[in-house]
Amino acid sequence: MYKLVEIESDVCAAEGFFADGVSAGLKAEGAKDMAFVYSEELCEIASVFTTNKMAAAPIKHFKAKGDFQTNFILINSKNANAMTGKAGIGDIDDILATLPSCVSNPVMSSTGVIGVRLPKEKIINGAKLFDLSKREPHAAAEAIMTTDSFSKEKAYRVELEDGSSFSIGAMAKGAGMINPAMATMLCFITTDAKVSKSEMQALLNETVQTTFNAASVDGDTSTNDTVMLLSNAKSGAYHKEAFQEALYKIMNFLAREMVRDGEGAKKLVTYNVTGAKDNAEAEVVAKALSNSLLVKTALYGEDPNWGRIASTVGASGAEAYEERLTISFEDVCVYKKGELFFDADMEAKAAEVMKKDSFTISCDLGIADGTFKAYGCDLGYKYVEINADYRT
Amino acid sequence: MYKLVEIESDVCAAEGFFADGVSAGLKAEGAKDMAFVYSEELCEIASVFTTNKMAAAPIKHFKAKGDFQTNFILINSKNANAMTGKAGIGDIDDILATLPSCVSNPVMSSTGVIGVRLPKEKIINGAKLFDLSKREPHAAAEAIMTTDSFSKEKAYRVELEDGSSFSIGAMAKGAGMINPAMATMLCFITTDAKVSKSEMQALLNETVQTTFNAASVDGDTSTNDTVMLLSNAKSGAYHKEAFQEALYKIMNFLAREMVRDGEGAKKLVTYNVTGAKDNAEAEVVAKALSNSLLVKTALYGEDPNWGRIASTVGASGAEAYEERLTISFEDVCVYKKGELFFDADMEAKAAEVMKKDSFTISCDLGIADGTFKAYGCDLGYKYVEINADYRT
Repeated sequence: MYKLVEIESDVCAAEGFFADGVSAGLKAEGAKDMAFVYSEELCEIASVFTTNKMAAAPIKHFKAKGDFQTNFILINSKNANAMTGKAGIGDIDDILATLPSCVSNPVMSSTGVIGVRLPKEKIINGAKLFDLSKREPHAAAEAIMTTDSFSKEKAYRVELEDGSSFSIGAMAKGAGMINPAMATMLCFITTDAKVSKSEMQALLNETVQTTFNAASVDGDTSTNDTVMLLSNAKSGAYHKEAFQEALYKIMNFLAREMVRDGEGAKKLVTYNVTGAKDNAEAEVVAKALSNSLLVKTALYGEDPNWGRIASTVGASGAEAYEERLTISFEDVCVYKKGELFFDADMEAKAAEVMKKDSFTISCDLGIADGTFKAYGCDLGYKYVEINADYRT
Repeated sequence: MYKLVEIESDVCAAEGFFADGVSAGLKAEGAKDMAFVYSEELCEIASVFTTNKMAAAPIKHFKAKGDFQTNFILINSKNANAMTGKAGIGDIDDILATLPSCVSNPVMSSTGVIGVRLPKEKIINGAKLFDLSKREPHAAAEAIMTTDSFSKEKAYRVELEDGSSFSIGAMAKGAGMINPAMATMLCFITTDAKVSKSEMQALLNETVQTTFNAASVDGDTSTNDTVMLLSNAKSGAYHKEAFQEALYKIMNFLAREMVRDGEGAKKLVTYNVTGAKDNAEAEVVAKALSNSLLVKTALYGEDPNWGRIASTVGASGAEAYEERLTISFEDVCVYKKGELFFDADMEAKAAEVMKKDSFTISCDLGIADGTFKAYGCDLGYKYVEINADYRT
């Protein structure tokens, strides 16, 4: 057996990891806009990147390196270094070449506006402000934010029966362009567990599916989505199930936090789809619900408009039948297998549920055993305000 | 050779068709909410319905009748008769049974709120107000509106070389839930052309793909989408190419009008995708652009954010390469095959284009010859306002 203990210091929680955020003048008014994650020891890396065919320069740069170990990640916000072609990749080489010699095989990660070259000199000067002995995880988490309204961090220490232990910690940014097929999200996870690269990659791939890939703010998939998991093995300890559980808890928490902090969002809704033909069809339905504009605006209006839920289920492409479908807002069942019983009394009860900041909408398709949970939010005026003129 | 002449009287433009709209008290304040289309002669029918698995009762009722001719369509707004099960289908039978004896095999069509039984008595009483000798196409078009802000109608007379002629006219409603895979849209087209049922159906199927199915307001697909084309053959005349051209012109006009009148929309944007691997991939890209929330809010903000266009192309799933892509706002090319030249001067020019009510965004993928045009609109505060509490 093992025990999971939630701990502080997040992306610096694992032994031997350092991080900080500084201001390089990319954001206005001296806000932090550059961060690093550093380990004294070289780390194995597992990673998942966007499926967007216009993948940004840092992702192409990373992939071109093939199989390698690193001890340093440089992250900037405000500029995505996307659609910048070979010049954008060259900019990364130029920037990384200026880092101190203790840094080995550094990688870069960017988020922000697309289609503008990096302000290279600012970033090179910003990197000179880094003090690699600093453990300031919250400053790092703050520096990677774009339209996020709060930073997103989590860490666990795993205590094993034999007295040994290891830790996993992470920071992430999300906010806009969050979508089931990976989002403009960056997530950096560090661990001192002694886990092999191949196992780490397999666990990361699996966990992404039910966490970040189940989260949707607006259905758009970005050019820069990145999840990196670095292990320096410094604890010497490892336990697969415990590692997997801690990783899931951290990534699920961060995915939900991203949706909760979706641009202008006030509500975090879990779409719990059951009874589908199979898990894949349940996923199609859950993601259709979390992405439907009509469902999202009904959430914003706190209107228990179950007809839009039913219509979205029907439009999703998954097998579904009016006379087998059951829809509930938390424990208030509003439609059951063809029966219409949605009166004013029930509407009042369902409306009460919708006033909550966080709740579950359940759809049972009544066909077979397929299930999936997706996370979505409402869409209101604030989303329009944020996105109508993001670049200025 | 033949000549197309735009004519008045729309859904009553073809010989022998009558239509009117009345108020049955479904909408507030005496607004028209029931319409009929009537022909003295029995008509062949071609039809296309929603792909939504929760298809509304009137659609199930129609399909259950098999192959038949009719001379009467009864339409109500304000209530969709969707998710109402067998009771909803029974309501239609009860209502249609009260119609006068000159009516043969009548069909019903509904639009409005989902999940509420039809107010049967109101509708039966409303139908008693119909005067089947009336030719009031605009009153009928007005009665079928829901959140539409203007009615949508069009008609052409086709004049053939031999002196004979026939006419095609139509009315439609759209506004919300408009989506590439058929929308909450109703469209009724009448003609006196002597066209066979099978040819009429084939032409309708083909024309729907590049008109209504190329139009998107919000990516949601409704339970009630219906396009019906009725021919009473009364003119005795027909010419395939001329019929097809008039049908396309009418349906394309109505589809664009629906997008222009999308809920809260201020702008009608044509996404002209060229150079794709094939036409199917061009369609995927064009529809991804017309449905992207980030693109739609940038349109609303009149922000020539070409990075979001590029990112959406990349996320669409279609084959695409950064170094082959070219993006233009009308004739202002903002990105060309990897070259970054988007300066302040060009931004000002592109911003000028975006101030227009209607313009074209072109994406050439530079791969092969696939093309598709989709029609979309912006998304602003008004959409949220309309949809946050539609039912009240």
